[in-house]
Amino acid sequence: MNKRGILLVISGPSGVGKGTVINKLFDIDDNLYFSVSATTRSPRPGEVDGVHYSFKTREEFERDIENGEMLEYAEFGGNYYGTPKSAVEKKLAQGKDVVLDIEIQGARNVKRLMPEAVTVYILPPDMTELKNRLVGRKTEDESAIKVRIETAYKELREAPKLYDFFVVNDTVDSAAAKIENILEAKRCGKTAMETALKQILEEVDSLA
Amino acid sequence: MNKRGILLVISGPSGVGKGTVINKLFDIDDNLYFSVSATTRSPRPGEVDGVHYSFKTREEFERDIENGEMLEYAEFGGNYYGTPKSAVEKKLAQGKDVVLDIEIQGARNVKRLMPEAVTVYILPPDMTELKNRLVGRKTEDESAIKVRIETAYKELREAPKLYDFFVVNDTVDSAAAKIENILEAKRCGKTAMETALKQILEEVDSLA
Repeated sequence: MNKRGILLVISGPSGVGKGTVINKLFDIDDNLYFSVSATTRSPRPGEVDGVHYSFKTREEFERDIENGEMLEYAEFGGNYYGTPKSAVEKKLAQGKDVVLDIEIQGARNVKRLMPEAVTVYILPPDMTELKNRLVGRKTEDESAIKVRIETAYKELREAPKLYDFFVVNDTVDSAAAKIENILEAKRCGKTAMETALKQILEEVDSLA
Repeated sequence: MNKRGILLVISGPSGVGKGTVINKLFDIDDNLYFSVSATTRSPRPGEVDGVHYSFKTREEFERDIENGEMLEYAEFGGNYYGTPKSAVEKKLAQGKDVVLDIEIQGARNVKRLMPEAVTVYILPPDMTELKNRLVGRKTEDESAIKVRIETAYKELREAPKLYDFFVVNDTVDSAAAKIENILEAKRCGKTAMETALKQILEEVDSLA
């Protein structure tokens, strides 16, 4: 029985520790494929093309948009970020579960195009800790920190309307285990079980 | 944070081993409450009032229907069967997850009244085995067996449209573990996380 894979969208406010939770999830689940985002921004030191991002020129990215090759995309700070569609489609068809690490605007677009996508929003254990973490980032100046905090607050206000599941990142292990539970549950969902159901119905018809 | 409990509806065709799976589920999950159905049929040997069923007279049952005290009910073979609402509501409010072992018609009614109910349909590993099990029941005459088989086939044809999740009973342990996964996932769902989300938003407001 070849099941279609699950499209899992994971979002969370800046500073919530989403990357660490996703890494842990990949440790405990062998059936996952991480969708590498495309972007037009320049690589930061240590970032590898095809691993952290697929780096593209503005011309390449806009051509991909025109050709309908982006599942979702958005522009932030003058750069495009988006999810190339073909790799996602191919892996889902192979039965792999595909993880998208995207922000709230992208999640909204994915859900519109693929309503069967499973969307998870990672929450901080409490807001004071999240704020401290955002303030504590020494890599940015004060105004950038202020924007980051305000964006996080705005996102947290919108998330309850948009996402299917909410996982508190109290510990990385428990947050990853909860997302794994959500995946396991969805593997029993109507979409994933379509082939199994079809087979049962054919057996019923042949017996009846 | 007081979470509202999850209403879990479990159905499956006659002979699929639903009772054994539900017993196993209660072994591995401490937060469950089993909703005892009410019925007007007579107790069979060994059946205990309030444990296997809540046995009622026809007059009592019909009064409960009139007073809106049944979450769902149906008539089979001249007897009423149904789910008393007050106990279910009370346990959900206490944060207990409530398990209803009801057939497809009841599941449809529950889903209509409480769309947030989680519905699970248990499937046999294959249909030949299910048929053999139904034929093998020596307690009934041939025509009763025929009715039972036809009901099972009819149910299996309708179930894919109605239920949220499908669990194959290949082994009792794995089937119960899958239902437990579904419960764990739903504990991260929007309804169950309502209080946690409200709290986060209050914290955001006080910080912003």
